[in-house]
Amino acid sequence: MPAILLAVTGTDPQPWAEALQALAPQRDIRLWPDRLGESADVAYLCAWHAPRGLFARLPRLQAIFSLGAGVEHILVDPELPDVPVVRNVEPDLIVRMTEYVVLHVLLHHRRQRLYGIQQRERVWHEHAQPVASAVAVGVMGLGELGAAAAVALARLGFRVAGFSRTPKTLAGIECFHGEPGLEAFLRRTEILVCLLPVTPATQGLLDLKLLRKLKRDGASGGAYLINAARGALQVEADILAALDEGSLAGATLDVFAREPLPPASPLWRHPKVTITPHNAATSDPRAFAANVLRQIERFESGLPFEHVVDRARGY
Amino acid sequence: MPAILLAVTGTDPQPWAEALQALAPQRDIRLWPDRLGESADVAYLCAWHAPRGLFARLPRLQAIFSLGAGVEHILVDPELPDVPVVRNVEPDLIVRMTEYVVLHVLLHHRRQRLYGIQQRERVWHEHAQPVASAVAVGVMGLGELGAAAAVALARLGFRVAGFSRTPKTLAGIECFHGEPGLEAFLRRTEILVCLLPVTPATQGLLDLKLLRKLKRDGASGGAYLINAARGALQVEADILAALDEGSLAGATLDVFAREPLPPASPLWRHPKVTITPHNAATSDPRAFAANVLRQIERFESGLPFEHVVDRARGY
Repeated sequence: MPAILLAVTGTDPQPWAEALQALAPQRDIRLWPDRLGESADVAYLCAWHAPRGLFARLPRLQAIFSLGAGVEHILVDPELPDVPVVRNVEPDLIVRMTEYVVLHVLLHHRRQRLYGIQQRERVWHEHAQPVASAVAVGVMGLGELGAAAAVALARLGFRVAGFSRTPKTLAGIECFHGEPGLEAFLRRTEILVCLLPVTPATQGLLDLKLLRKLKRDGASGGAYLINAARGALQVEADILAALDEGSLAGATLDVFAREPLPPASPLWRHPKVTITPHNAATSDPRAFAANVLRQIERFESGLPFEHVVDRARGY
Repeated sequence: MPAILLAVTGTDPQPWAEALQALAPQRDIRLWPDRLGESADVAYLCAWHAPRGLFARLPRLQAIFSLGAGVEHILVDPELPDVPVVRNVEPDLIVRMTEYVVLHVLLHHRRQRLYGIQQRERVWHEHAQPVASAVAVGVMGLGELGAAAAVALARLGFRVAGFSRTPKTLAGIECFHGEPGLEAFLRRTEILVCLLPVTPATQGLLDLKLLRKLKRDGASGGAYLINAARGALQVEADILAALDEGSLAGATLDVFAREPLPPASPLWRHPKVTITPHNAATSDPRAFAANVLRQIERFESGLPFEHVVDRARGY
């Protein structure tokens, strides 16, 4: 029977291997590098920052599954063979990302960091804040994750707009697209939520020039950045500069150029920055395993894979 | 023209007076105690913890409007005349309360207090957490505020149940009611959100006996209390006892027996308690004024008031 290989760096592969084996006890599940075995048996690869060149060494490879929603860690391999690369699209991941975005928009909107500081100092004082319907939130990236987050924010009453590379339509969301759309989208946005994929076109997009375009004189009292996508999208020195000059009133960052964020980074202790350890939407090994096995069964019965990456656009 | 009197203690009445006057420049707006004038002219009273006996001293009173969603501060007056008491039901208030409930459920669910502590210590570490669909949230009180919060939580994926005195039906929400329903509701609830009105039947309801009935062995890893209604509903010594013995894993309290919460209260520094200064759903003076003036115009054109309190049930 064709084997499934797990090639994972930067996180513990064990829960993923166990989840696959538990759901498919009859399958040959292997773990790179120790339990690779005969590489010609490997038909399916589950990858998270796998070593460069590994894919090309598997002659019978049928598909590569990303453990996360992003696939940039797979597409960077210059020897990537011509097999389907499959994104991890599962409902749990979408639910978790929506939770994260809603939580951090509300934390900012409701001034909860201030109330946390006040509690430590036993201060009873209420701060004025606008109604949600006066606050313009903008979601960049309207894939499965971005669209769900935008809809959830709109349901809470925020004025939500979305931006995507190609035209999209979402009920209750003002949708912008393309280069001219980006300008207008940024100018009306007070709270910017980034859920873009990393591609050559989006790398380093969140720079000082872009952040300066956000709406600073809105009801929210300043511009705010939430990046829950990938660290490669942001220029961290520019985020610090934007905070210092006032282009940004604050930021919530879940992702960084280097992860774990190095202890020396000034972001850790910046009073206007909320740091989370890339926990916005962690894939659940069991949900991932169930999804991968379902896709493999579909494929083995002659159906195509779902959520295959378009390599030309990069996601 | 019949005058509108504002009688407010414990908060600054000025923004309320200004909002009424700005929207109705032709109206006679008075402010207790300094600008009361001829009490026989007063037809409408806007009240927030008004002094006892004041209502009875206004011979031509037509209605009393509460500045907040609750009316217990009006109904406690033993000399309350037989005029309609009108609750403040306005969309902004419902939006704000939903924001508060969603924020604090997610803060707990997503372990964000832990991440805040970790950030201060520059610790990069992710904590396991269940998916929302495995977590049972229960909302006590299914009036306008409770129903909206329950629906918002269900949309985020939580398993939501509601409890009310009388039977209610809400799409996607398992509804319990009455004394036998309360027992079953508490036993299945991990995160309890209290949005009940204060009545003789609910005073002190959140006591040790009730808190011990909450589900402790659910996906969330313990029981959690969020009280965003009124301090009179809770027994603060019992909440502390429940936290100490483990019946409660934590609590978010927006309301207290005494407000502002006295600096000596052990709740301020309890590591498992989040304190906010009764800011869950602050009435907006402009929204309140627009609502009151609309109701007065309706009444003066011969229509009945909306959202009149049923004194027998107390809300």
